[in-house]
Amino acid sequence: MEPIGLGYLAAGLGAGLAVIGAGLGIGRLAAAALEGSARQPEAAGDIRTTMIIAAALIEGATFFGLIVCILMAIA
Amino acid sequence: MEPIGLGYLAAGLGAGLAVIGAGLGIGRLAAAALEGSARQPEAAGDIRTTMIIAAALIEGATFFGLIVCILMAIA
Amino acid sequence: MEPIGLGYLAAGLGAGLAVIGAGLGIGRLAAAALEGSARQPEAAGDIRTTMIIAAALIEGATFFGLIVCILMAIA
Amino acid sequence: MEPIGLGYLAAGLGAGLAVIGAGLGIGRLAAAALEGSARQPEAAGDIRTTMIIAAALIEGATFFGLIVCILMAIA
Amino acid sequence: MEPIGLGYLAAGLGAGLAVIGAGLGIGRLAAAALEGSARQPEAAGDIRTTMIIAAALIEGATFFGLIVCILMAIA
Amino acid sequence: MEPIGLGYLAAGLGAGLAVIGAGLGIGRLAAAALEGSARQPEAAGDIRTTMIIAAALIEGATFFGLIVCILMAIA
Amino acid sequence: MEPIGLGYLAAGLGAGLAVIGAGLGIGRLAAAALEGSARQPEAAGDIRTTMIIAAALIEGATFFGLIVCILMAIA
Amino acid sequence: MEPIGLGYLAAGLGAGLAVIGAGLGIGRLAAAALEGSARQPEAAGDIRTTMIIAAALIEGATFFGLIVCILMAIA
Amino acid sequence: MEPIGLGYLAAGLGAGLAVIGAGLGIGRLAAAALEGSARQPEAAGDIRTTMIIAAALIEGATFFGLIVCILMAIA
Amino acid sequence: MEPIGLGYLAAGLGAGLAVIGAGLGIGRLAAAALEGSARQPEAAGDIRTTMIIAAALIEGATFFGLIVCILMAIA
Amino acid sequence: MEPIGLGYLAAGLGAGLAVIGAGLGIGRLAAAALEGSARQPEAAGDIRTTMIIAAALIEGATFFGLIVCILMAIA
Amino acid sequence: MEPIGLGYLAAGLGAGLAVIGAGLGIGRLAAAALEGSARQPEAAGDIRTTMIIAAALIEGATFFGLIVCILMAIA
Amino acid sequence: MEPIGLGYLAAGLGAGLAVIGAGLGIGRLAAAALEGSARQPEAAGDIRTTMIIAAALIEGATFFGLIVCILMAIA
Amino acid sequence: MEPIGLGYLAAGLGAGLAVIGAGLGIGRLAAAALEGSARQPEAAGDIRTTMIIAAALIEGATFFGLIVCILMAIA
Repeated sequence: MEPIGLGYLAAGLGAGLAVIGAGLGIGRLAAAALEGSARQPEAAGDIRTTMIIAAALIEGATFFGLIVCILMAIA
Repeated sequence: MEPIGLGYLAAGLGAGLAVIGAGLGIGRLAAAALEGSARQPEAAGDIRTTMIIAAALIEGATFFGLIVCILMAIA
Repeated sequence: MEPIGLGYLAAGLGAGLAVIGAGLGIGRLAAAALEGSARQPEAAGDIRTTMIIAAALIEGATFFGLIVCILMAIA
Repeated sequence: MEPIGLGYLAAGLGAGLAVIGAGLGIGRLAAAALEGSARQPEAAGDIRTTMIIAAALIEGATFFGLIVCILMAIA
Repeated sequence: MEPIGLGYLAAGLGAGLAVIGAGLGIGRLAAAALEGSARQPEAAGDIRTTMIIAAALIEGATFFGLIVCILMAIA
Repeated sequence: MEPIGLGYLAAGLGAGLAVIGAGLGIGRLAAAALEGSARQPEAAGDIRTTMIIAAALIEGATFFGLIVCILMAIA
Repeated sequence: MEPIGLGYLAAGLGAGLAVIGAGLGIGRLAAAALEGSARQPEAAGDIRTTMIIAAALIEGATFFGLIVCILMAIA
Repeated sequence: MEPIGLGYLAAGLGAGLAVIGAGLGIGRLAAAALEGSARQPEAAGDIRTTMIIAAALIEGATFFGLIVCILMAIA
Repeated sequence: MEPIGLGYLAAGLGAGLAVIGAGLGIGRLAAAALEGSARQPEAAGDIRTTMIIAAALIEGATFFGLIVCILMAIA
Repeated sequence: MEPIGLGYLAAGLGAGLAVIGAGLGIGRLAAAALEGSARQPEAAGDIRTTMIIAAALIEGATFFGLIVCILMAIA
Repeated sequence: MEPIGLGYLAAGLGAGLAVIGAGLGIGRLAAAALEGSARQPEAAGDIRTTMIIAAALIEGATFFGLIVCILMAIA
Repeated sequence: MEPIGLGYLAAGLGAGLAVIGAGLGIGRLAAAALEGSARQPEAAGDIRTTMIIAAALIEGATFFGLIVCILMAIA
Repeated sequence: MEPIGLGYLAAGLGAGLAVIGAGLGIGRLAAAALEGSARQPEAAGDIRTTMIIAAALIEGATFFGLIVCILMAIA
Repeated sequence: MEPIGLGYLAAGLGAGLAVIGAGLGIGRLAAAALEGSARQPEAAGDIRTTMIIAAALIEGATFFGLIVCILMAIA
């Protein structure tokens, strides 16, 4: 079994797990943001800004993780 | 066992996991959006916009992950 | 073990996982839509539209994932 | 180990997982529909229509997944 | 290891998973139906009809999945 | 490893999983039925009928799955 | 590895899983029955009858599954 | 690997899983019985009787499963 | 791999799982008993008796399972 | 692979699982005891006695399980 | 594969699992103690005593389990 | 199997798990922050500051973990 | 496969699991402490003391577990 | 398979699991801190201090665990 094969395997599983992480995280906070802006429509702008900051933190980690994975998929 | 075989395996499992991530994430935030717009029908437009922004963040990570997978499925 | 065998394995498992993702996601948001339209019957049309938009986002990822899988099942 | 054996394995597991996905998804949304129509009997027709649309979206993905599986079971 | 052995393995596990899917799905929606008809006894007929429609959708997918499995068990 | 051995393994695991499915499903709906008939004793007959219909749907799938398993255990 | 060994393995695991299924199912419905009869002591007889009917449905599937397992343990 | 070894493995794991099943089931229904008899001390005798009937149903399945396991441990 | 080795493995894992089962079951019912006796201090004696009866049922199954395990550990 | 190696493996995993069981069980009932004695400070002595009886039942099973494990670790 | 290697593996995994058990158990009861002493500040001393008794029971099992593990790590 | 192959595998899986950890953690606290700032719009600034401090603690651990992973992916 | 390799594997996995245990436990009790000190600001000092005692109990077990792991990583 | 390969594998998985632990723990307590400071804005400073103390305890264990992992990744 050559290294490249395990690298492929890791790339696929890692990408899948990373998307699960992003989905769980952004899904949760966006759900809270949507409930919040439904309860307080006048604070919707402020909430959306906070949501995007927090989502960006998760997106950052997610894309870093996906870059680790694609490095192995194309190598 | 050749690398390409493990690449196939990774592509399938990774695609499945990525869709689970997308389903969990978008399902959760869309559920919150739908509950919110049922409670506050007059804020429905604003909520739908926020929902699509958040869903796009998850879709972006999901499709990036799926691209990693299809790279290995067609290679 | 030939690559095609692992491709078959990946296709089956990936398809199953993708359907689980779709089921969890659409099931959740549709449940919220149905509860919402039961609480606010006059907003049912608006809710159904939002539901279909959100479900389409999940269906898109699901079918993309299933296409990755069927590529390997028929190859 | 021949490809066809792994294809059989994939077909069985994939079919089982796909049915779990369908069960979770349709079970959840139908539960919401039934609760909704018990709370608002006069909206039962509208709710049943929405339920069938949403269930059809999951059934579509499920049967697509099952077709991927049966392709390998009979091949 | 011959293909037929893995086919047997797949048939058993797939059948078990499919029954879990059916149990989770029908159990959930039937629970909602029973709670609903206990709360609104006069809507029991309507609820039972909706329950059977939804359960049929899950039964359909379940039996399709079980057919995939029995194909491999008797082959 | 002969096919019959894997068939045995599949039969045992499949039977166990199928019983879990039946237990989860019937347990859930019967719990709802019992709570319902405790809350509305006068509707107990109607609820018991609905419970048996729904349980029969799950029992049907369960026994079909168990038949798939016993086919392999006695073959 | 001879078939009989895998049959033993299947018998043990299957028996364990079947008992988990029975425990989850009967435990849940009996809990509901006990709560119900504590809330409505005058309906205790009716509730106990329904509980035993529902438990019998699960016991039936459980013992069928255990028979599948013992067939392999003593063969 | 001889059959007896796998029989030992099955006996241990099966016994462990069966006890988990018994623990989950009896634990749940006994918890409900204890809550019920705390809420309605005058119905404690009736509740204890029902609890023992239900627990006996689970114990029956558990000991049947444990007998399957011990058959293999002492053989 | 000799049978005795797998017997050791089974003994350890089985003992661990059996203790988990006992912990989950007795933990749950004892928690209910403690809550109940905090709510109804005058019924504490009756509740403790019921708790010990129910715990004994679980202990019985647990020790039977542990005996199955120790049989293999000392053999 | 010699038996002693698998015995070591079993000892470690079994000890870990047994501690998880003890943690879950005692954690749960002690949490209930602490909540109860916070709600009814005058019943704290009675609750603590019941808590120690119940915890002793779990400790008994846990230490029996740990003895099974240490038998294999030092053998 | 020599016994000592599996002993190392068991030591690491067992230690990890034992710490999870301790974390779950002490975390749960300490959470209850903290909530209780926030609700009834005057009973804080009594609650802390009970908490330490219960935590000691879990610590005892945890350290016994860790000793089993370290025996194998340093042997 | 060469070390580098397992290093690739570890890099992918580790990156995926680390992103799940980041997603769960930041998603949870950001959800609380968004709910809090929706309930108390005037405290939104203070809450956002606390949120970023806490998120930074998780991001720190996440990126440290990702660095461990990328070290192996590019080596 | 040499013992040292499995020792490395055990060290990594054990360290990861131990940190999960610490995270779950301290996270839970600290959450309760923070909620408590938000509800009763005047009892904050007392609560913080109790929190640190309880956290120290978990930290103790965690670091003992990590020491077991690092013994194998540096050996 | 050389020790270094398993060391790499352990480093990656351990780092991932440790980050999950940190995410779960800090996410939970920070969520409680944010909810608390939204409910009691005047106690925000005190809550933030307690949060950082508790988070530091988890960070300490996490980084210790990550150090164990990086020791193996760079060795």
